[in-house]
Order: sequence, then structure tokens, then C-alpha cells
Amino acid sequence: MIKWSLIACCLAQLLPQLVALDNGLALTPPMGWLAWERYVCETDCNKYPNECIDQGLFESMAEQLVADGYAQLGYQYVNIDDCWSKREREPTTGQLSPDPARFPSMRALADKIHSLGLKLGIYGDCGTRTCQNFPGQLESNENLTGNHFESDAQTFAEWQIDSFKFDGCYMNANKASQLCPPMGVALNKTGRAMLFSCSWPAYENDLHLPTNWTLVEERCNLWRAFGDIEDSWQSVLETIDWFVRKQDIILAHHGPGHWFDADQLVIGDFGLSRDQERAHMAIWCVWASPLYMSNDLRKINKESSRLLRNKWLIEVNQDPMGIFGLMVLQAGQLQVFAKPVGPLRNSCPSYAIVYLDRRTLGNGKFVSFPLIKIIERLHAKLSALPKWASWYSDCLQDNSTVFNVNDLFNDNSKIGQLKLNGQLELRVDPSGAQMVKLTRL
Amino acid sequence: MIKWSLIACCLAQLLPQLVALDNGLALTPPMGWLAWERYVCETDCNKYPNECIDQGLFESMAEQLVADGYAQLGYQYVNIDDCWSKREREPTTGQLSPDPARFPSMRALADKIHSLGLKLGIYGDCGTRTCQNFPGQLESNENLTGNHFESDAQTFAEWQIDSFKFDGCYMNANKASQLCPPMGVALNKTGRAMLFSCSWPAYENDLHLPTNWTLVEERCNLWRAFGDIEDSWQSVLETIDWFVRKQDIILAHHGPGHWFDADQLVIGDFGLSRDQERAHMAIWCVWASPLYMSNDLRKINKESSRLLRNKWLIEVNQDPMGIFGLMVLQAGQLQVFAKPVGPLRNSCPSYAIVYLDRRTLGNGKFVSFPLIKIIERLHAKLSALPKWASWYSDCLQDNSTVFNVNDLFNDNSKIGQLKLNGQLELRVDPSGAQMVKLTRL
Repeated sequence: MIKWSLIACCLAQLLPQLVALDNGLALTPPMGWLAWERYVCETDCNKYPNECIDQGLFESMAEQLVADGYAQLGYQYVNIDDCWSKREREPTTGQLSPDPARFPSMRALADKIHSLGLKLGIYGDCGTRTCQNFPGQLESNENLTGNHFESDAQTFAEWQIDSFKFDGCYMNANKASQLCPPMGVALNKTGRAMLFSCSWPAYENDLHLPTNWTLVEERCNLWRAFGDIEDSWQSVLETIDWFVRKQDIILAHHGPGHWFDADQLVIGDFGLSRDQERAHMAIWCVWASPLYMSNDLRKINKESSRLLRNKWLIEVNQDPMGIFGLMVLQAGQLQVFAKPVGPLRNSCPSYAIVYLDRRTLGNGKFVSFPLIKIIERLHAKLSALPKWASWYSDCLQDNSTVFNVNDLFNDNSKIGQLKLNGQLELRVDPSGAQMVKLTRL
Repeated sequence: MIKWSLIACCLAQLLPQLVALDNGLALTPPMGWLAWERYVCETDCNKYPNECIDQGLFESMAEQLVADGYAQLGYQYVNIDDCWSKREREPTTGQLSPDPARFPSMRALADKIHSLGLKLGIYGDCGTRTCQNFPGQLESNENLTGNHFESDAQTFAEWQIDSFKFDGCYMNANKASQLCPPMGVALNKTGRAMLFSCSWPAYENDLHLPTNWTLVEERCNLWRAFGDIEDSWQSVLETIDWFVRKQDIILAHHGPGHWFDADQLVIGDFGLSRDQERAHMAIWCVWASPLYMSNDLRKINKESSRLLRNKWLIEVNQDPMGIFGLMVLQAGQLQVFAKPVGPLRNSCPSYAIVYLDRRTLGNGKFVSFPLIKIIERLHAKLSALPKWASWYSDCLQDNSTVFNVNDLFNDNSKIGQLKLNGQLELRVDPSGAQMVKLTRL
């Protein structure tokens, strides 16, 4: 006969390995700024004095986040990516040290960031080396022998770091589920709440390996599941296509505390038109994806800056229910995305709806769909999840239900009212999007 | 013994079929506005009252060309594309008539365009139907029996048309060289000088059929050789790649009176970023391609409009030597294009040089090449043509030759001077370009 005390003992021992990441962070999708897409691994600070990966870059972006009002809208993380450390660990202690010329004091940087009311993120790798060949957190790709999880976590905590991205170059993707999650445990063990951003699902995806999504959801605050975004419409569309293909899985594992990260916003960079930037922002917001800009906030053009600070889109992104928006209808090159958001009326949600137009020819065109079709398909898909299943039976009955329709790209201006049995007509540009909110009355 | 008089007689008879198109037009690449890419075949003037293919659209674009200064920079053709005519020819006369609701009077439209100092272009097809299923100029795809070449040319002349685009849908591409050139003869025969724009090389290319470039050069003022451009960076790059692959052929057949047409400028539309628009314009100008905008000049944003009216780029495009600019160097995702332009010093040319950066990641970067390498490769390629061969021996000898370097995107501002043995360093954005003129001193 098994003794209950034994079970209790073992459960307690297993607990750090089994329970969900319990850091209380990321109840809505995290927002901020991340260096990678725009600044990559530029370490030549003589040739690019204000545009290299150094302390000054992150300080100036943090200042800009506050000065231009991004911070008060929720963009609070300032994230260092690869190329911040020395090429090797300290020979005697095995400690990670920042590059002394470019990051004279990581703690001073964190203090500066915190004094602005912001948070500082840093970067590592669940392999022996990072993507750009700096030290990773592991010493072996086969097992955890000699790993630096606890000591590095402790170092980050001492520096007052708030977020850690765990990349996966030189990682053994076949063993990622065993090798990588303990880093989150090590972070938690420091007692400092640090956001844990995981990349191993993206590497598993690259190699067509299955991902244990339940584990990822339990252990990570956010995670990358697809390749790095680049500064092109093609890359944005490839990301959209992947997320749409996987949307049933994503829907099931995406929510407060744990998010699929569609990767950085390449808005205010070089490769997207105004319309494409709007579409990119609309889709990331309807997905409730984390929103990390990668751009030069000191030089960004006004239209891109205004788009990134569109509070109506951000409100959709940050909706507390945290539901992943779904692609519910496709007609030719037009895709309709929908996401339930607040306010609820009689327990039924309001909606954010995006019309994405993927044409590459011609002029803006009027596009119209029956609202009931959009909403019915959305709730049909949501009914796979017990949490939202009752909406299908309860929220589609009354054809006379009325919604206010507001144009989220046009300062939330009211377009009109629409009944559930009406047609939602919007004019959409090629490689552009429209986004409206339908508030249930 | 053959009688000379007989030979003279036969030569005279053959003359219209054999000699070059002799209309004196297009001594520099034609410039203007063309409806297709932006307005396609939108004929619903109730739903799109100011954006459908009708007389008013062309009048308003013509007015805008003049009002905003495009016209005085050389944009003079206002070109109707497909979808202007009735669905069928007049049953009794076989005449082509414009759609009466959308084009109440083609002659009145031409008069209006002419009163603005501009020229009017129209469209047909070397097949039985146009691409959008309006009447073409042929009644058979096998032979010229029943063709409408002379009567349609006469109709166009009566309407005071100045340019004719001869498309190739429903065309027999295997017989294009026989069936299509006589239309140019018919146009000439009217006595009215009309630009002859040919599309059959593009259809031959689609089907991997060889094109008789000597014939095309003799018979057409300009011609399309590759697929329709679309409103995307991908489409611009595909066009660039095709033209680069074929550049030796193009160089040999491109010049005053007869031009490879890289298709419309999609600047001020929906799919290109600011950087991509600059790159697109730079390459079309260094190629000496015809410059036909397809956009809404009434609503275009200021940056795109300013780019289209950059007189320094247009000057390169319109250089009287009309030499096709070549891609002379490639390093990773950076391509260097160069074109000889005026002024000449001691019979040696000056140069327009474009650095095209095809990266989709990161920030603007400094790129540097030895000037002598750029110029040497350019002249090596040009030496295939007797006309420019002497430049190779005569213009590369003196390393101390000095050039003024001017930034054509920055209002022609002088960057500095450069010797032939110096390095040309420019900072280029991802999916962007820089363009300088090197004036020989």
C-alpha cells in the first residue's frame, strides 16, 4: 500500500518541474522594443556610432519610448538580443560578462531603464553557443551536465533583468523539451520575476519535429514557433500563412500568461509600404501577439509612429480575455480575421474584425461579407474550447442584435450600426487591411 | 543580267516592310501615365465614380500632370489601356467604337489632352480579342485575312491619337513576327505620327519562343518583353532579374527611337515602401526605360510625387545617348548598375551609378567598391558594340581622372570628388538604393 505522505513528498519534489510557470507575468501580450531585426549583430561602434549594439542604443530607445508616449500605451520591455556578451565566459568563474566596451555596466543600464518605468530584457541560448556565436547556457547538447542555468539566472537577477529570451541555435532540437524548460525553473528560483521567452518550438518546427504545446504553455510566458520575421511584405505574409495554418493549435494554447509570439513588428523600417504596415499591425493585434517593435524610434516617420501608437488597435491586442483571433473566411485574395473582445453583453462578446487584402494589382475595392457568416464561423471554431463553447449556442440566435461599428484606423470613428444579419462592407487597398470593432449593444 | 530599274522597283515595294519605323518619335524614352496597373478594367462607374476607366479619369490625370509639373519634366503621354471600347465592333461597318457611356467622344478627349500640351494613347491587341475580351485587331489567329489594321489605324488617326499599345492576349505567338508588325505599317500609312508600343516579345518570352530582336527594334518604338509589373517589391525584383539576365541582348537593341519597356512605375500606389520606390525609380532611370506612371496623381503622397518628379533622375533616364544601364557588379545582396551619360570630356562619358541593396534585414549600411572596377566592367560590356567600343581603350587609362560625385536623391547635392582609382562608398538601406552621378572633369 502506497503511503500518502510519500506521494505528497514526491509531488512536492516534482512540483517545480510540473506546474505552470508561476511568475504572474504577461497577463496581456507583452509589448516593447527588441533590437534584433533592425540592429542585428552590428558591433562596429566606430562605423555606426549610434546604431550598434551597445548600452547607448538601449538607453536612447528607452528614452524615446517614454518621450513619444509609447511607454504609456504599454510598450515597456526594452530587449537586448544577441551579441551583448563577451565572446567567452570568464575563465575562472564561468560567469557571463557583457562586452566591456559596449556594455560597461549592465546593472547601470537596468537602473536607467527602470528609472524610466521600463523593463530590461536579455538574451541567451538553449545550446552551447548563441546564433551569433556567443556563449549559450549549455555545455553539452546531449544533457544538462555543466549547464549554466542557475548561475546565469542568478547573474541576470543581480543585474535586475526583467525578461529573458532563450534562443535555440546550436540546440539539440530532439531534446529541447528535456533540456530547455529547466532554465525557466532557474529563473523562477532567483525570486525575481523574469519573463521567459522560449524559442525551441520554432526550431522544432524548422526540423518538422512535433512540439509538446502543453509543456510550452506551462513553462513559457511567450514563445516563437516560426522563423524570424524579416523586413519585407513577403516575410509578413509567410508568418501570416504559418499562423493561419496552425490556428486551431494556437487558439488552444494562447492566452493570459502564455502567448504565441508572431515575432517583431517591422514597422518604421525599410521594407513595408504604409498599407502593408497597417495590415501587419492589424493582424498582430487581432492575434493578441506580443508586440515588440524593432526600428529606430529616433528617426521613425510620423505615419509609422502613429500606427504603432494606435490605442484602438492596442486595446484589441491587450483585451483581457486574450483570445487568438482567427482567419474565418477567405474569398480570393481577401481574408477575414475575427477576435472576440470586450465588452460582453449578456455574456456575449464584442468583436474585432480585420479584412486583409492580398492583391498586388489595382485600386482599393469595396468588400462585403454577411456579418452572421463571420461570427458564426468564429464561434464554431471557438466551440472547440469548453471555455468559449457556450457562445456558439447563446450568441448567434438573435438576428436583430445590433453592433456599433467603429473604424479603428480612423481614430475609432463610428461608421454606423450593423445588425447580426447585415453586411459588413469595407473598402480595402491591395496589400492592405481594414480593421473595425463591433461593439455589442 | 538583272536590270537596276527592276531592283529599284522591288526595293520600293518592299520598303514599308523592311525599313525601320520611321516616325521620328521616342528619341528619348517616352514618359507619361498609363491606366492599367492602378485602374485595371474597372468599368463600374457607379460604384467607383472617379476611379473607373472613363473619359473623366484621363482628363483628370492629364490636368494633374500639368498642374503638378509632371508634364514639363517630360511626362506627356496619357495612355488608355484595355476596356475602352464597346464589347463588339459596329455590325455594319466593322468600326471600333468607344463605350458610349464611359467615352462619349474620343476625339473630344484627344482635343482636351492636346489643349493641355499632352498626347493621348490608346490600346489594341494583335489577336482576335484583347486581354479583357474586347475586340482585337485580327479576325484570325492564323493569317491576316479580314484584319482591321488599316481601318483601325485610320480611326485612331481621325481621333487624333498619338500612341498605340498593341497587346498580345489571344495572339498566335508562333506567328507574331508575321502577324503583328504590319499594324505599325498601317499606323505610319495614316500620315499621323503615332508611337507604336509592341507586346509580342513578352508573349514570346512567356512561351519560351525566340524573339527576332532586330525586327522588333526596326518596327516598334517601344516594346514589352517581360510580364506585367504588379504593385509589389517582389514584382519589381522579378522585373529587375529578367532585365539583368537579358542585359547583353537589351544593350544591343535599346536606344533612341526603340526601347525595351520595363513596364509601368508603381510609385504612389499601395505595395512599395519609400525605399523600394526609390530603388524602382533609380533602376528604371538607369535603364533608360520608358517611364509610365500608373497611380492616382490626385491623391498621391508627397514623397512619391517628389520622387517621380526628381529631375536629376529623369535627366539620366532621358540622356540623349540612350544607353541601357548595366548591372556590372554583385556582392551578396548588393548590385551595382552603371550607365554612361553626358557630359562627354575628350569623347569619354560621365556615369550614373546605382547601388541596389536587396537585403531584407537590418539597417542601412556603408557599401564601397573601387570605381575603376565598376567603370572597367561597364566599358568591357559596352565594347561588344562597335559604337561604344573605343571607350574601353580610351577612357580607362588615366587613373588620375577626376569626377564630381553628386547625390541624385538629395537634389543633386555634391558629395565630393573621386578619382578613377578611388572607392565609391555610399550608405544603402535594405530594399533600397542610392544613385549618384559621376561627372567627368
